[in-house]
Amino acid sequence: TVDGDRLWRSLMELAEIGAYEDEQTGLRGVRRLALTDADAEGRRKLVSWMEEAGLTVRVDAVGNIYGHRAGTVPDAPPVMIGSHIDSVATAGAFDGCLGVLGGLEIVRTLNERGITTRRPLMIAAFSEEEGVRFGTDMLGSAVAAGRIPLEEAYALTDADGLTFGDELARIGFAGPHGVRLDPSPYAYVECHIEQGPLLFRSGTDVGVVTGTQGISWQEIVVYGHAAHAGATPTEMRADAGLVAAEIVRHLRTMVDSGDYGRLRATVGHLTLHPGDTNIVPARADLKVDLRNPDEECMVRAEEHLARYLDRLQETQNGLRITTRRMARTSPVAFDGRLQKIAVREAEALGLTHSSILSGAGHDAQEMAAVCPAVMVFARGEYDGISHSPREYSTVESCARAINLLAATTLSLADE
Amino acid sequence: TVDGDRLWRSLMELAEIGAYEDEQTGLRGVRRLALTDADAEGRRKLVSWMEEAGLTVRVDAVGNIYGHRAGTVPDAPPVMIGSHIDSVATAGAFDGCLGVLGGLEIVRTLNERGITTRRPLMIAAFSEEEGVRFGTDMLGSAVAAGRIPLEEAYALTDADGLTFGDELARIGFAGPHGVRLDPSPYAYVECHIEQGPLLFRSGTDVGVVTGTQGISWQEIVVYGHAAHAGATPTEMRADAGLVAAEIVRHLRTMVDSGDYGRLRATVGHLTLHPGDTNIVPARADLKVDLRNPDEECMVRAEEHLARYLDRLQETQNGLRITTRRMARTSPVAFDGRLQKIAVREAEALGLTHSSILSGAGHDAQEMAAVCPAVMVFARGEYDGISHSPREYSTVESCARAINLLAATTLSLADE
Ligand SMILES: NC(=O)NCCC(=O)O
Ligand SMILES: NC(=O)NCCC(=O)O
Repeated sequence: TVDGDRLWRSLMELAEIGAYEDEQTGLRGVRRLALTDADAEGRRKLVSWMEEAGLTVRVDAVGNIYGHRAGTVPDAPPVMIGSHIDSVATAGAFDGCLGVLGGLEIVRTLNERGITTRRPLMIAAFSEEEGVRFGTDMLGSAVAAGRIPLEEAYALTDADGLTFGDELARIGFAGPHGVRLDPSPYAYVECHIEQGPLLFRSGTDVGVVTGTQGISWQEIVVYGHAAHAGATPTEMRADAGLVAAEIVRHLRTMVDSGDYGRLRATVGHLTLHPGDTNIVPARADLKVDLRNPDEECMVRAEEHLARYLDRLQETQNGLRITTRRMARTSPVAFDGRLQKIAVREAEALGLTHSSILSGAGHDAQEMAAVCPAVMVFARGEYDGISHSPREYSTVESCARAINLLAATTLSLADE
Repeated sequence: TVDGDRLWRSLMELAEIGAYEDEQTGLRGVRRLALTDADAEGRRKLVSWMEEAGLTVRVDAVGNIYGHRAGTVPDAPPVMIGSHIDSVATAGAFDGCLGVLGGLEIVRTLNERGITTRRPLMIAAFSEEEGVRFGTDMLGSAVAAGRIPLEEAYALTDADGLTFGDELARIGFAGPHGVRLDPSPYAYVECHIEQGPLLFRSGTDVGVVTGTQGISWQEIVVYGHAAHAGATPTEMRADAGLVAAEIVRHLRTMVDSGDYGRLRATVGHLTLHPGDTNIVPARADLKVDLRNPDEECMVRAEEHLARYLDRLQETQNGLRITTRRMARTSPVAFDGRLQKIAVREAEALGLTHSSILSGAGHDAQEMAAVCPAVMVFARGEYDGISHSPREYSTVESCARAINLLAATTLSLADE
């Protein structure tokens, strides 16, 4: 078993990089968006820890960081343990970091015990998993898995128009290595906090993840007409802000209708232009996040939304609505054999466990396209809240999940 | 009659200061928010024009600019011609500037003809009439009229936390003169573009303004909880963005109900925090603009909104809503005698005219508290659209309205 305290100290030390005081909650959170200076500092810290642990570090052209540990069979495809260290704007210390630092902790433990696995191990930290800066989540792993071309990733822009490619070069993490994994890993394993309430509410130790739901992100831009808020008769307005509000409401109606299975819908981003008190908004930008464990339901929800936007445009005088796809993934089922191994190892460790479908997207769903993959979940406190400075787990919960990750990894690495 | 071409040239020259290319419309607009560098440059231009026209320029402690022209009775209370030169973020060339530069054009014409009026004339440009930067409209004239204390104005902050007082000092327009008008003007006259469709649709030359409707501005902040958009069950959310959308929708329902007379309601400003695609918004900031020509209806609308927000807070789990008043004025009726003079002069000039209640707020409504006041409206093109780069008037429409302003002014100045 791993050293839970050492793991915890590493988590807390990494969380200092990009730490901020959250005004609303009074808590200390983490803000380490991909390819910012804070992310660069976090990456340098990770690389130095990897090197201290004897790993051979390689950075690829999309900024993914790989730490390699030799096995007794040198050319065997490695078992990869991965996740990410970039964060959203209001994050805690665990999302992504637990998986990467958990992998590092496994290596440290193996080093102490003088254990060499048959297959090589590879610890991976993928770029821009969150997708909040450049608009596409799981970006680094999607490029490594060949789903998204490197050039497409390079061309993505942030809110200031800076490209992923330029920012990666700026922070010095446009590595010399090709993005393709050659050989493909033998297997991919990832530990992540659950980010949902199931383990917490049922008091279960760990989760074995069956798969991930589909994700559909799109940007909607509503164009109306700027006009004077006091002097413009209501019936003459083309109010982009009001239309945006209708769209936000309508999405919730779609969820509540039950017509689209277990649809979740969120508008996390909404801006009005010009944004002045006495100007009817000329334009509204929304980013819509749809989730669905069922692909057929997701497609129907997307089609319904598109038709709704068309109708809205027609009913409102002088209004124009455009949409742009940002990210789209289908539901992914993790490898059945690997899930069984994780369950077996959880039982061997005496951990209570349950099978969980992930609500969030993860790098594992991208790696599942190139090799068998599986994930384990650590329990989060406070109903597993995440993407919030309230995100929290305990030393024990983290250690339990990383012990399960270690056992699963070792089992696969000795196959 | 004034020189309409010279007036037009001054309008176009001032519009170069703070000019911007509007992406959405492809038009050239004006963005000269109060106490920005562009506003400072506009102010300097105005002061130089006033001095060239022989006016004695005085700047008061709130940044109002007054240009004084002596009369034959030196100590008589002056007739004041005023408006503003600050703009909203998506403005045209006319809002405010027509009134100030129209006053200047009257002075230039009197100079050419060698005419001295009995009473002195005063051309006024008031600070932050738009209210979009520091949150309170008609701020300079409200301070001059004694409704808002100078210290209160100084303490107002913009979106970056900069205070009105500091910014006024920074641009060098915190003048040495007291804000109180001593003596009070004999009368106040203002010309403005209509900013509404009535003159345009009926093809009428000019408007004589009967008064202004009430204005109620408040900031609403909705506090929810940041959470993961994919992993958080719908029923566990406290989504500040969704609640903000409900509020925007509800305001329109209030307007459509007819229960609050001729209420207009606009949410021109709405921001979500942290504003990331996959985070349920933790907080939403809205600025609500209510207008009503009837004070009783306005009060009922405000009370209803307050109760609605209370209820909303109670029905939603973990939600908190705060409100803060930004600006509030009651409807103002302009002086009956001055309206009659304006109507008489319009007829003497052979202009078609109609009486109009102003939809927008104006400095004249503040000055009406210290002296008889009246306004005339110039016709705007394209349904009188304003607070938009599409705002437009013609050389002829502007000249007609300024001729009426001149005749009204001269009539009063010789009383
Ligand atoms: N685990 C996680 O927060 N991933 C970010 C991508 C998503 O929005 O689900
Ligand atoms: N005339 C004008 O645009 N005034 C600004 C104040 C308001 O919002 O009515």
